Amino acid sequence: MNRSLVLTSLLTATFLLASSIVLAPYFSSNMVSAQQGQEKEKGGQVKHVTLIASEKQLQVAPDNALHPGGITYNAYTFNGTIPGPVISIDQGDTLNITLKNEGKTIHSLDFHAGYGPSKALSGSVKPGESKTWSLTGEFPGVFIYHCGADGLNGIWEHISNGMYGGIVVHPKTETKAKEFYVVFSELYNNADKGPFVGTNGTAGSFDIGKFISKNPDLVMTNGMAHKYVPAIGQVNKLELNKNAELFKVKPGELTRWYIINAGPNDGVSFHFIGGMLSV
Amino acid sequence: MNRSLVLTSLLTATFLLASSIVLAPYFSSNMVSAQQGQEKEKGGQVKHVTLIASEKQLQVAPDNALHPGGITYNAYTFNGTIPGPVISIDQGDTLNITLKNEGKTIHSLDFHAGYGPSKALSGSVKPGESKTWSLTGEFPGVFIYHCGADGLNGIWEHISNGMYGGIVVHPKTETKAKEFYVVFSELYNNADKGPFVGTNGTAGSFDIGKFISKNPDLVMTNGMAHKYVPAIGQVNKLELNKNAELFKVKPGELTRWYIINAGPNDGVSFHFIGGMLSV
Amino acid sequence: MNRSLVLTSLLTATFLLASSIVLAPYFSSNMVSAQQGQEKEKGGQVKHVTLIASEKQLQVAPDNALHPGGITYNAYTFNGTIPGPVISIDQGDTLNITLKNEGKTIHSLDFHAGYGPSKALSGSVKPGESKTWSLTGEFPGVFIYHCGADGLNGIWEHISNGMYGGIVVHPKTETKAKEFYVVFSELYNNADKGPFVGTNGTAGSFDIGKFISKNPDLVMTNGMAHKYVPAIGQVNKLELNKNAELFKVKPGELTRWYIINAGPNDGVSFHFIGGMLSV
Repeated sequence: MNRSLVLTSLLTATFLLASSIVLAPYFSSNMVSAQQGQEKEKGGQVKHVTLIASEKQLQVAPDNALHPGGITYNAYTFNGTIPGPVISIDQGDTLNITLKNEGKTIHSLDFHAGYGPSKALSGSVKPGESKTWSLTGEFPGVFIYHCGADGLNGIWEHISNGMYGGIVVHPKTETKAKEFYVVFSELYNNADKGPFVGTNGTAGSFDIGKFISKNPDLVMTNGMAHKYVPAIGQVNKLELNKNAELFKVKPGELTRWYIINAGPNDGVSFHFIGGMLSV
Repeated sequence: MNRSLVLTSLLTATFLLASSIVLAPYFSSNMVSAQQGQEKEKGGQVKHVTLIASEKQLQVAPDNALHPGGITYNAYTFNGTIPGPVISIDQGDTLNITLKNEGKTIHSLDFHAGYGPSKALSGSVKPGESKTWSLTGEFPGVFIYHCGADGLNGIWEHISNGMYGGIVVHPKTETKAKEFYVVFSELYNNADKGPFVGTNGTAGSFDIGKFISKNPDLVMTNGMAHKYVPAIGQVNKLELNKNAELFKVKPGELTRWYIINAGPNDGVSFHFIGGMLSV
Repeated sequence: MNRSLVLTSLLTATFLLASSIVLAPYFSSNMVSAQQGQEKEKGGQVKHVTLIASEKQLQVAPDNALHPGGITYNAYTFNGTIPGPVISIDQGDTLNITLKNEGKTIHSLDFHAGYGPSKALSGSVKPGESKTWSLTGEFPGVFIYHCGADGLNGIWEHISNGMYGGIVVHPKTETKAKEFYVVFSELYNNADKGPFVGTNGTAGSFDIGKFISKNPDLVMTNGMAHKYVPAIGQVNKLELNKNAELFKVKPGELTRWYIINAGPNDGVSFHFIGGMLSV
């Protein structure tokens, strides 16, 4: 499998689930952690995850000069966050997935780690309904999962609105490392009047015109613009996010980065300033 | 040679030609087929292909809600179709190419499988004229061929209008597989007023403004929007193409996919839903 | 290190510097040349380069039908040219870098060949000031250097305006070849009224609106549109640059191409007509 290819269209995920549901909302920590399950099957473990689809207003840009008052958006979410929680299994594990639709519109799931339509797809799930199915982690790598709306009808709106996350299938042998993930995505917001203007407090929704003409209002990292950028400017400082999170690593520590580009339109050129990546 | 690099800018092709001309318009079947030639030279065979350049109105979108009445376009074509026919040779084969210009404007050919300008390029061929030259399949892989207009003067219009196709140079050892190809491209149509409006029956032409601002009206697969998509929506169904073609494969059958992005502007992120690609 | 990854975001550079400063403006020749330094350290040599940041009007398009009168632009430059000079070191060499700011705004340097922030970054350098630091060529490959403005504040404007160049770190064993480099970039010019109109002699500046909507006025190769294209059209000839430069190679000569895409927005699909690349 071509890992670099995969890397360009997805990410990964932490919160490893034992037999019981363990939700570890990714954004309380950038670190990918893992917990061991208890059941075994075909040499692998059996793990469970529940994803709750719903609609929810979320803050997608901090209050700064570029976005006066911050930006709030009528998002579509898995488990209430953009992106949805990260999921982590080992090669050979079986993952049972439950999709509960607690929202007001039809949602669904496409798990790119699943091999075969019955493993990858939930089919349309109506409001108030739920569905459970399972996949086996056959190929190691990082894979996106996302909403496919109602049988692809509305897929771009549902993805743009925030319904994506990542699953990592760890290979059987892997050097231990501190793991991070960053999900890139674009937001097309009909209430956003542009840089230094913002939305004047209005929570906007998907703008199909901006989407078709590929003019996003925000590029987000893990669900928010400038999430990890406190400020720019050494001499003339421009504050961007006074609550910015930081990636913390010890000198000499091996790190592994899972990068996902949920898009839906633009590419991503990720690099470390003063660093090197091996892929 | 970096095959994945090549894959991003082209496709491939079937209709293998013996000494005589055998035209197998690709869109009567999605399968790449092959016929054996009879002559031998330097261990390879000698094959012939004739490509006829002309201008022709073609349907590029089906009649559906997104494109009421369908979309007809003043296309530029090789052998009357978008894309042009696919061509298939084996490594070491010699391919004799004849370009006949039966159109009203100057056309030409750039064969990316050709190594050396005299092997790759026809030069400008005026209306009513023709030119024959040959190339040897030196490097295995999939390669685009396209019109270069009059010495690059007009190349983007001629490519956008439909003058592209693919040639595959099969490596000497290759596992037998059922082969498919999909050519992606964008159309910039001065008669198209957008989604749910369409052209009101007018056959449009290349729109340089839409091209420069990278706002295509259609993204086509093998020459037509929604060619392989009967409908979207499980609960709320939206019919897109009642004559949609399907890719048919037996369970367990090995398949090989040649993907070409004729562009000219946008990238393509091709993947199988619930499947895996090895490259 | 993934060289093809690196290739997509940068270029390289010639003018090898001994202990004394040797400036070989790249555009007097397209060939990457090298000179031997004299000092040794850790098995490598110590080399020095001085980059002078300043603002300067430059011609960025020739006088032709597409750009009547040519296009002049208020550029930001390293050593007075777009791109800045190319720099070439060997793996294991130490490179001392001096950034002198002779301009009117804050500038800085980010050397992607440097491993570690103190090796890669100058920090903000005010007008009239200078700073010297050093890096070691640890990883072979081609890397971009560019202005980071004032701690990223203004980075896209400074890069778009011309502040980028390349450094090549030659691997310890490398087949000798004639080397070329081509830097691609986009220009967003508030004075440019478009094709066949141009600027009517006005020197424009960075247009943030065109930048955000990804509508560049020019795509440049080594700092000028149509730098290497005398004309297009065999039958109907359109002259583009009567002073166009050419890449000259002897039959059978091995060549090595360093391709950099300074962007900042668009991708580059570089290929040879009638040729093959091995990467």
